[in-house]
Amino acid sequence: MSDGPLVGVIGGVGPQATAYFLDMVVRLTDAARDQDHLDMVVLNHASIPDRTAFILGESDEDPGAVMAEDARRLAAFGVDFLVLPCNTAHHFVAQIEAAVPVPLVHIVDETVAEVARRVPGAAPVGLLATSGTVRAGVYQRALAAAGASCVLPDDAGQATLMRIIYEQVKAGRPVDLAAFHEVVAGVRARGAQAVILGCTELSVVAADHRLLEADRALVDSLDVLARRTIERAGRRVRG
Amino acid sequence: MSDGPLVGVIGGVGPQATAYFLDMVVRLTDAARDQDHLDMVVLNHASIPDRTAFILGESDEDPGAVMAEDARRLAAFGVDFLVLPCNTAHHFVAQIEAAVPVPLVHIVDETVAEVARRVPGAAPVGLLATSGTVRAGVYQRALAAAGASCVLPDDAGQATLMRIIYEQVKAGRPVDLAAFHEVVAGVRARGAQAVILGCTELSVVAADHRLLEADRALVDSLDVLARRTIERAGRRVRG
Repeated sequence: MSDGPLVGVIGGVGPQATAYFLDMVVRLTDAARDQDHLDMVVLNHASIPDRTAFILGESDEDPGAVMAEDARRLAAFGVDFLVLPCNTAHHFVAQIEAAVPVPLVHIVDETVAEVARRVPGAAPVGLLATSGTVRAGVYQRALAAAGASCVLPDDAGQATLMRIIYEQVKAGRPVDLAAFHEVVAGVRARGAQAVILGCTELSVVAADHRLLEADRALVDSLDVLARRTIERAGRRVRG
Repeated sequence: MSDGPLVGVIGGVGPQATAYFLDMVVRLTDAARDQDHLDMVVLNHASIPDRTAFILGESDEDPGAVMAEDARRLAAFGVDFLVLPCNTAHHFVAQIEAAVPVPLVHIVDETVAEVARRVPGAAPVGLLATSGTVRAGVYQRALAAAGASCVLPDDAGQATLMRIIYEQVKAGRPVDLAAFHEVVAGVRARGAQAVILGCTELSVVAADHRLLEADRALVDSLDVLARRTIERAGRRVRG
């Protein structure tokens, strides 16, 4: 490969989010020719068992063991560091990190660090994520460590998000954008000063409808991970 | 991995086209959930030396040897077949195929077969491609074998294409769409009944501006490769 590091992507969770992640990294890299871009190996492992179903106890197929094996295969391929463009999957990150000698850039930690740069430390922060991510508590812990509180959607809002994620984005169907905006408005009405898109399927929605350009208080985890990946690989973010 | 085959993508040539290829495969797969998608490993090897520069004798850095090594690494990773989403790189395909025991789905052959399905066999067919692809003659030979003749842009049109490919798409800059349409009109004026987008950077232009939906006589090599990849992996194209 080239002089630069080789980035390993544990992907497929979901496949569309992984494709968007690769596209974001390419678009956001300050490059004038092919050879200025990052060398990456993307394992788009679509058949990984559902993460939320396992965390909620609805399935006993453990995606953590599969992702740890994927990490091992990528490490054997020669990657210098790993990224995992799925928030829910970060519930399994200790298992993945224990399997390999290479570091992993953590989407939750990096997203919360970005929130802290944009809003005052003690501000309430909205979290739009799968029920698996919410149950796993990964964002709540990271926000608490940063001195911020976490504002979740109400039950109806959370059900709306799960419908958008599973029945629309993952199913390749059109997204009910009005319903999405209503959930954002809901966490804002309850005090959220920033709103984390803490599910990479919601990042797909944001990218398709240019939501980040329209509203700087939305902090998209996939966008943050793409930027940190470029920097970690020693390249500059376009802009 | 899953029960299905693992698809290996020799990518990075260019990086944006590779990202679009992954996105196209995901979008075009008839899937209702993550696990219905193809398992793929995409080596986005951006630092591969420029293909056209080598074919035209402007560089002595051989991309063929690098891509053959990439194919070997992907075969060792366990892929069942390979795709190479770059037309110019198909000049080196014998070298790549000789390096590995797994088959490669050939973008040029598949694109010409698709053209033959859409227009009568003996019709003149326009070719929009890099100067490296044109010089390599890969499309001219495949079209001749199918009984069709190849219509190239004139020198000014070819220079326009190279500017769009290298100074616009590969450089992450806005594309001069009017100039692109002029080149298409040029090969049509000289008799082309169908027009092959035989450079995956032009596929990026087609996708960004929805050109294929607007004009069925445009046959996009990346779109064709995505569809054949899905079918070869035993899945159905959404439709």
